[in-house]
Amino acid sequence: MNNQKISHKELVADWHALMRTFIRPENVAAKTTLVKYMEQILFGLHDFLNTHVGITEEVSLKDLSEQFKDTLISENPEEKLADVIANIIEKTAPYAVNVASPYFVGHMTSAIPFFMVHLKTITSALNQNVVKLETSKILSIIEKQVLAKIHRVIFKQSDEFYLEHVQNTRTSLGCFTENGTLANLTALWIARNTQLCPKQEFDGVDKEGIYAAYKAYGIEQSVILVSELGHFSLKKAGGLLGIGNNNIISIGLDSKNRIDLIKLKEEIDKIQNSEHKAKILAIVGIAGTTETGTIDPLRQLGELCSENNIHFHVDAAWGGPVLLSEKYKYLLDGIELADSVTIDGHKQFYMPMTSGMVYFKDPCIMDSIIYHANYVNRRGSVDLGIKSLSGSREANSLILDSALKIMGSKGYALLIEHGIETAKIFADEITNRPDFELITSPELNILTYRVFPKELKMQTAQSEEAQRKINEKLNEINIIIQRYQREAGKSFVSRTTLKTYKGHCENIVVLRCVIMNPLTDMNILRDILDEQEEIYKKTLT
Amino acid sequence: MNNQKISHKELVADWHALMRTFIRPENVAAKTTLVKYMEQILFGLHDFLNTHVGITEEVSLKDLSEQFKDTLISENPEEKLADVIANIIEKTAPYAVNVASPYFVGHMTSAIPFFMVHLKTITSALNQNVVKLETSKILSIIEKQVLAKIHRVIFKQSDEFYLEHVQNTRTSLGCFTENGTLANLTALWIARNTQLCPKQEFDGVDKEGIYAAYKAYGIEQSVILVSELGHFSLKKAGGLLGIGNNNIISIGLDSKNRIDLIKLKEEIDKIQNSEHKAKILAIVGIAGTTETGTIDPLRQLGELCSENNIHFHVDAAWGGPVLLSEKYKYLLDGIELADSVTIDGHKQFYMPMTSGMVYFKDPCIMDSIIYHANYVNRRGSVDLGIKSLSGSREANSLILDSALKIMGSKGYALLIEHGIETAKIFADEITNRPDFELITSPELNILTYRVFPKELKMQTAQSEEAQRKINEKLNEINIIIQRYQREAGKSFVSRTTLKTYKGHCENIVVLRCVIMNPLTDMNILRDILDEQEEIYKKTLT
Repeated sequence: MNNQKISHKELVADWHALMRTFIRPENVAAKTTLVKYMEQILFGLHDFLNTHVGITEEVSLKDLSEQFKDTLISENPEEKLADVIANIIEKTAPYAVNVASPYFVGHMTSAIPFFMVHLKTITSALNQNVVKLETSKILSIIEKQVLAKIHRVIFKQSDEFYLEHVQNTRTSLGCFTENGTLANLTALWIARNTQLCPKQEFDGVDKEGIYAAYKAYGIEQSVILVSELGHFSLKKAGGLLGIGNNNIISIGLDSKNRIDLIKLKEEIDKIQNSEHKAKILAIVGIAGTTETGTIDPLRQLGELCSENNIHFHVDAAWGGPVLLSEKYKYLLDGIELADSVTIDGHKQFYMPMTSGMVYFKDPCIMDSIIYHANYVNRRGSVDLGIKSLSGSREANSLILDSALKIMGSKGYALLIEHGIETAKIFADEITNRPDFELITSPELNILTYRVFPKELKMQTAQSEEAQRKINEKLNEINIIIQRYQREAGKSFVSRTTLKTYKGHCENIVVLRCVIMNPLTDMNILRDILDEQEEIYKKTLT
Repeated sequence: MNNQKISHKELVADWHALMRTFIRPENVAAKTTLVKYMEQILFGLHDFLNTHVGITEEVSLKDLSEQFKDTLISENPEEKLADVIANIIEKTAPYAVNVASPYFVGHMTSAIPFFMVHLKTITSALNQNVVKLETSKILSIIEKQVLAKIHRVIFKQSDEFYLEHVQNTRTSLGCFTENGTLANLTALWIARNTQLCPKQEFDGVDKEGIYAAYKAYGIEQSVILVSELGHFSLKKAGGLLGIGNNNIISIGLDSKNRIDLIKLKEEIDKIQNSEHKAKILAIVGIAGTTETGTIDPLRQLGELCSENNIHFHVDAAWGGPVLLSEKYKYLLDGIELADSVTIDGHKQFYMPMTSGMVYFKDPCIMDSIIYHANYVNRRGSVDLGIKSLSGSREANSLILDSALKIMGSKGYALLIEHGIETAKIFADEITNRPDFELITSPELNILTYRVFPKELKMQTAQSEEAQRKINEKLNEINIIIQRYQREAGKSFVSRTTLKTYKGHCENIVVLRCVIMNPLTDMNILRDILDEQEEIYKKTLT
C-alpha cells in the first residue's frame, strides 16, 4: 500500500524555507504580504459568509463529504499559505455556517464583535500556556484578576475579601475551562470530592475511589438533582465521575419551566429516608436553560441546599452575564448563595469559540482537586495548572479582560437588554399571529413556539386522545417547516422537543429562537415568521 | 460598597458604536484601521518579546501582581481597541514569557511557524462550533478527514478501512480535545466503560456508576498501570473517573527510563492473583515521557495487553508526530497495537495553544460515551458533540489540516529530525565538559543533565552515605543555577527531580532541555552551558 500521495510538483519541503516561517520577517515586502493575508481573512471571509446562513439539505452534505475522503498526507507541501487562505475563503467558508447572520437565531452562537478576532490573534501570537507560570507569567496574573472581577459580580463579597484573594497564590476564585461542559464537570468533581472528603482512615474519594468512599460513608448511591431542563453535560459528568448518569435525577417542572420546588423537596425526603442509603452530592440550579432560557428559583434552592448541607451549583453558562445589566440582574437573585457557578465566555460574553469559566464562593474549595508534577506545578507554586481539570490552556483571560475594558459592563448590558426586550416583542408578535402558538414566554432572550394553523386550532377537540392526535400532526408540520427553512438557507431557527404542554405530559416539537445578535431586529424576526407561514401554506396544505 | 469604578471620562457605552463592532466595515478608512491593528499584533508583539526570555525573580512577580488587584469592572468603556492593543504590546507582552526564543529550551512550548497565527485567526473569524453540524457544517467534515489522516499514520489500516470510516457518520476514528490531559481522560474513560460494560442485568458503569459496576463484576478495585514517568494527568483521570488516583499504579523503570517489563508482569500477576479482586482497566505506554522523552517498549506492551485482554493506551502527546519522520518512526514501533493514542497539537505539531487529540483503533469504541440532547445531537445525527468529553469546541482541525498542507509530512519530519539530532550532539557536548554530567541520554529531543563540578567528581566516594551527601550538595547547586539563569532572563532550561541514579533509588535534581525550536542550534546550547558554568563559578565557589 502506498501511504504517500503525489505532491504538488513545484513545492518541496526545504529546511531553509521552513526556518523562515519561524522568524519575524525583517524586510518590508514579506511583512506586507503577511499583513495582506490578515486583510483577506478579516474581510474575505465575511464577504463569502454573507451569502448563506446555514445548512443546506442533507444530500448536499453527503455530496460535500465525498470531497473529503482522501486520507493521505502529502510528503511535500501541497499548498502555500496564500493558496490555503484563498481556498478557505473560496471553497471552505461558503460551506461553513454563517453564525454571524442576524437571521441565524437558532443556537447560542452569534456574531461576535470585530475586535474579538484581534484579541484572539493576540493570544495566539503570544502563545502562552497558563498551565504554569514559567510559560505564562503575567497572563497567570491577569487570569486571577479577571476571575476576581467576575467573582465579585456573582458573589458580591467585601473589598477586603477581594484584596486578600485576587492575587493570592494559595487560594483560587475559579478557573477558565474549554467550555460550560467542562466547567460543570469541574464544579461537580469538586462537589463530589468535598461531600466525600477524607475522614478517619479514609483518604477521600479522589484518592481511594467511589467504592471505598461509599464503604467509608456507609452509602450505596450518590445523586445529583436538577430539573428536567438540565444540560446534558450534567448527565455526562455523572458518568465520568463514577456516580453513574442514572444518578443525575431529573426533577419535574412548574408551569413556568422552572424546577418544581415541591417535587424537589419530596425527592430530597425520599432519598434521605430511603433504605438505599443514598447521599445527595449537589443540587443544580439553572440560570438560563438551554431549551427555554428560564431561570430556576435560585434563592429558594440556595436556602434548601444550605439547610441540608448540599453543594449548590448554578449552571449560568447562558444567563451569567445578565448580572452585568442593572435592569435585569434581579432575575438571577440568589445566585450569590451558590457554592459554584458556571459561565460561558463564548455565549453572552461574545468571546470567540471557546471559553468556559467556573467560580467558587469558597476560595479554598479547589484544594480538593490539587494535582502536582515534579517538572512543573511544584507544591505551593502559583501555577494555575495545579487546580484545574485541564492541562495546557491558552490565555483566554486576556480576551475577556480586554473585552470588559472595551465594552464596559454597560456595553454588555446593552446587548443583554436588547436580547431580552426584542424577545418579549417577538413573543407578542407570535401570540398575535393566528397561525402560531407561543409555547414558552421569554424570561431571558430565548423563546419557543410552533406553527399552529388556525384551521387546526379550530379543530381543538375535547378528548385527550383527539388533542394528542392534533399534537402529533403539529409535530410533523413543525419538523418539516424547520427543515425546509434551514435548507432554503436564508434563516435558521432550531427545533427541540419539550415534554409538557398545558400541564399534560406530552412531546411537543417546538421552534426555538435565541436573540443575541444585536442586528437581529423585529423586521428580521417577522421575515422569519412570514417564511414559516409561507412554507406551511405552499407545501403542507 | 461602591461596585462601580470611575470610567474613562470620554468613553461612554453607546448602542450605535457597539452595533458597529458587529458589522463588517464598508468604508476604506475603517478597514485600513482594522488591518493596521493586525500589523501591530503581528510585528509589535514580536519586537517586545525579543528582549526577554522568561521569568524574572519572584519578588518582581509579587510586584507585578500588585498592579493587578483592581477587581471592579468599569461601567463605561475604559479603553478603545487601539489602546488595548498598544497597552498589551507595551505593558503586557514584556512581562509575558518569550516562548518563541531559541534560548527558551525548558518546556514543551516553543516558537510556532508564523502562518499558525493566520490559521488561528481564520478559525476565530469563522467562529464555528463543531459540537454540532448546524453550527459548523464543513468544519465537521474536515475534522473527520484530518482525524483519519493522522489515524492512518498511527494505525496503518487498509485503504478500504479509511474509505469506509473517513466520513462515516456512525463511526469515529478519534476526537479533538483541549489538550493531552483531556485526551488521556477521554481514552481512560472509554477504557473504563468498555472494561466495565453492560452485561446481564447490569447497564454499564457509565449509567450505573462504579459501585454498581464493582458489584456486577465481583471486584473491589480497578487499576491502571503506567511507568513512574507517567504524566500527572493520568493520576487526575483516576481521581475523576471514580477509580481513585491511588489505583493508578506506578511501575518502576529499567536502566533506560522505560517501564520495567519484568516488574510490570510481576504486578499483573500480583493483581490477578490478589484476594482484593481487582481488575486492570488499562496499561499506559508512554511515547515520549515529559521528563526524559523516553519511549516505552510499545510492541511488548501491546502484546502483553492483547494476551490479557487489557485496554492499551499510548500517551504519545509528545512523541506522536515522530511518526511523520521516515528516519525515526521506528522508535514508536508497536504503537499500532494500541487501542487508543493521545497526541498533542500544540506540541510537536507546532499548533497554537491549545489542541489535543485522541485516536481509537476500533471505530465503534467511542459509542461507549454517547450522550444526547433534544435540542442538538439527536440520535443518529452526525454531530461531533455526541461522542466527546467536551461540549462547544472551536474548529482546531482546520489549523492542523492547513498546516499539513503547508508543511507536508516532510516539513514536520525536518523539524523532528533537527530536534533529535541536535539533542544527540548536545548530549555529547555535555559529556565532554568536565563540570557537567549527562543524566538521561536523548532518545527523542529531550535530555537531562546536571552541573557536576570536576572537584566534586574527584571526591566521588566509596560509601553510599558519602555519595548521598554529594548528591544532596549537587541538588542544591543545580537548583540555584537553574534559578539564577532563569532570573537573568537570557535563557531558560527547566528543572525536575528524577528518582533513580545509576540503579540507586535517589532524588536527583536535573536540568531539562527540550529541543524543538528549529532556531536552537549548538551555538545557543553552548552559550547556555557556558552561562551555567559561569553562575557556578561566580556564585557557588
